[in-house]
Amino acid sequence: MKPNLARRRKKLRNLMDEKGLDAVLTSNHDDIFYYTGYSGFREDRIFMVLPAGGEPKLIVTPLENEAEIKYSNVIFMNEVKDFLDQVRPFETLGYDEKYLSVLLFKKIDKLNVKLKPVGKMLGIPRMVKEANEIDQIKGAISITKKVFGKTGSGMIGKSEKEISNEIDIEFRKQGVTNAFENIVSSGPQGVFVHHKPNERVIKKKDSVLIDIGCRFNMYCSDIARVFFKKLDNKKRKIYEDVKIIHNEIIDNIRAGTKYKDIESLQEKLFESKGYRVFHNFGHGVGLSVQDPVSNVLSKNEVLTVEPGIYIKNLGGFRIEDMVLVKKGKAEVLSKSIPVF
Amino acid sequence: MKPNLARRRKKLRNLMDEKGLDAVLTSNHDDIFYYTGYSGFREDRIFMVLPAGGEPKLIVTPLENEAEIKYSNVIFMNEVKDFLDQVRPFETLGYDEKYLSVLLFKKIDKLNVKLKPVGKMLGIPRMVKEANEIDQIKGAISITKKVFGKTGSGMIGKSEKEISNEIDIEFRKQGVTNAFENIVSSGPQGVFVHHKPNERVIKKKDSVLIDIGCRFNMYCSDIARVFFKKLDNKKRKIYEDVKIIHNEIIDNIRAGTKYKDIESLQEKLFESKGYRVFHNFGHGVGLSVQDPVSNVLSKNEVLTVEPGIYIKNLGGFRIEDMVLVKKGKAEVLSKSIPVF
Repeated sequence: MKPNLARRRKKLRNLMDEKGLDAVLTSNHDDIFYYTGYSGFREDRIFMVLPAGGEPKLIVTPLENEAEIKYSNVIFMNEVKDFLDQVRPFETLGYDEKYLSVLLFKKIDKLNVKLKPVGKMLGIPRMVKEANEIDQIKGAISITKKVFGKTGSGMIGKSEKEISNEIDIEFRKQGVTNAFENIVSSGPQGVFVHHKPNERVIKKKDSVLIDIGCRFNMYCSDIARVFFKKLDNKKRKIYEDVKIIHNEIIDNIRAGTKYKDIESLQEKLFESKGYRVFHNFGHGVGLSVQDPVSNVLSKNEVLTVEPGIYIKNLGGFRIEDMVLVKKGKAEVLSKSIPVF
Repeated sequence: MKPNLARRRKKLRNLMDEKGLDAVLTSNHDDIFYYTGYSGFREDRIFMVLPAGGEPKLIVTPLENEAEIKYSNVIFMNEVKDFLDQVRPFETLGYDEKYLSVLLFKKIDKLNVKLKPVGKMLGIPRMVKEANEIDQIKGAISITKKVFGKTGSGMIGKSEKEISNEIDIEFRKQGVTNAFENIVSSGPQGVFVHHKPNERVIKKKDSVLIDIGCRFNMYCSDIARVFFKKLDNKKRKIYEDVKIIHNEIIDNIRAGTKYKDIESLQEKLFESKGYRVFHNFGHGVGLSVQDPVSNVLSKNEVLTVEPGIYIKNLGGFRIEDMVLVKKGKAEVLSKSIPVF
């Protein structure tokens, strides 16, 4: 099923209308794919100018000479002027202030164009996932499940880096790439939330936190599990606590709930058990692993639930699932990936 | 051999001095690694504030709680104020206008801090490679050679995507990751310079352009070769022409040569043979695959030489080598990777 680009653009244009914008400019690859269906070389800088009326324009480097075949409205940027010519006609131009460089901002600012930062606007239509998007997300999760299945055993004696490499290879055997750098943090290194796998070798008594995801047909997964042979009593208690908190959070996610109320719930649960909160309970997932989420959750948003307890000299215990927001209880899309 | 960070910073501080800067701010991961030795989670936004005197400060997300172990001078950014507090003390702050977001620029601009764009300044000390850096680059090339060796044969009947996946897997078997997305462009698709490998299956008469690189101990390789079973006369002529141009360019690279003179030479060579130039003859390689190069080349700069001829319905013929600039003729670091 092809996405209905016209409907997506209409949603965006309604938001543009509220802000009085004649056009909006972005260089965010995910937004550009969402509104145009175009995806190019990830390392290339591309721009989309989406006017209040008419087809969005893509501005690409001449190295992306394939763009013309893939999309109907392409401008090649040989020099900055080529870019400026595309924004010049607009009276009021919205721009993504987190992505636009100061260099280009200053150049546009010299034109007779009024620049307005749009904040999260471009991400708003992306929050609620379409049926086809949910299918791709499920596809990414299903591959991640297979990779977890191959990873779970035989870690002792290998280094974190080796395990991470094996995960990369398994993803590629399934025809996908990573959605983000693998996190493999073992034993006391589990305490580092965004740990880069290193030479540390897994020992018998270690717990190993693995946080991975892939990109399948452009859509991401992001799931974490803790592996171990045996947990001592202290670690067992922490692990059981994180499971309780995890389930409690999921039980409270449904359409109409405020994101910040779930944040407060996490805070309360951690405090009641005497733990410190290191990070948010979760985030959106879709074309990016950090997709926008609504302040008040809506049906068909996809987000992670990933409470984590980190104790110095002991390790890290984070269970991360992906859930689909529903009118009733959220559906745990990754529930078939075993939590030990 | 550990890099001499103090010497690198001294070079940068001399440049800062010329511009009258009290400090410089960047969020470029490669620059941050170069001046501090710190590398974190690639997806996280990190900042370095390097003052005219004293130790550079790193500003990181609390998720990078490992940073404190890896580097001595770390500030955690829980809110934007934590970031602003670090730049507030400076009278004149240099910033990288290609990387700084408009969002942060505007917030800093409200402080009593004079903001000055620094252009390529942070990259200048990185242009000439140190002995240890050249070793890592050679390491990346040597792995890429092995991967080319495994890729060269047996492509017929496979799709571009499958070949690309196999290359990814081979890199990981060697313990490294890609430096950029693989380009595998076959037959007529070779005409697309930054082609994304797709489902097209390689046929007997195709030439296949493969442009790949890896990151070894942080340093990149970037090499392209053309594979084929047999070339018809038309393709053979083009392929021989690109080889001649390639060699002619390399013969003219040495310390003291102007980058733009080599650009003009490429232009002249292409024109004399009736071809159109699609892109620059080359670029720097080091911590990034698009490293800065000097206007006047210096000894120990590393750059690519990659003339490419692209003919509609026929294909793409690009040979990309990495060369080390010397007083005399440049050394082709990747020369042991066969050009057929």
